Amino acid sequence: VVSENRPFADLPEPPYTAVIFSSVRTITDDAGYAEMAAAMDDLARLQPGFLGVESARDHTRFGMTVSYWRTADDARAWKGVADHLAAQRLGRAEWYEGYRVRIAVVERAYGA
Amino acid sequence: VVSENRPFADLPEPPYTAVIFSSVRTITDDAGYAEMAAAMDDLARLQPGFLGVESARDHTRFGMTVSYWRTADDARAWKGVADHLAAQRLGRAEWYEGYRVRIAVVERAYGA
Repeated sequence: VVSENRPFADLPEPPYTAVIFSSVRTITDDAGYAEMAAAMDDLARLQPGFLGVESARDHTRFGMTVSYWRTADDARAWKGVADHLAAQRLGRAEWYEGYRVRIAVVERAYGA
Repeated sequence: VVSENRPFADLPEPPYTAVIFSSVRTITDDAGYAEMAAAMDDLARLQPGFLGVESARDHTRFGMTVSYWRTADDARAWKGVADHLAAQRLGRAEWYEGYRVRIAVVERAYGA
């Protein structure tokens, strides 16, 4: 059923790279943040090696986003895209109380 | 500040294993699910090689949980713990419309 699968990234067979981003949102600027998040989502999808993304943020303002990339180099290149660098600066300065990034190689995957 | 860090797993230097679990909750049995999720969280923390866990579920009932383990073998052993197997069966039968599991090796980490 399409509606069941929409939040899930449709990924190829491993191996591929996962960028696990977890963050706590500040209580400021929900509109500006939502706009930038949507713009960065659109921009990420245009990058070489982009495979998919999954994301959830809960009522405590803690969120997790995992983006998937063909290679670690593809993920690194996205980190350095100019508009994304500007978004990262705003994130550190305004939008996140704290965040963690873990870069990983996916070796196995399954689901239902 | 302690309250900023509470949702984040306090992890050692990489490498370590990440189990990325994403799911869509059915609309049934929120109380039973919450009770089982808390029990599995407590049980996971007792397992050999458990390093930490981060989790968020949004208003659409899409959620992401990433648990971290010293080795892939530690993660695999947790998958086979009897009470956890029972929880997995209930998850497939009752609680999840769909889910994905990706097992990855974290190679690099940073944050603020």
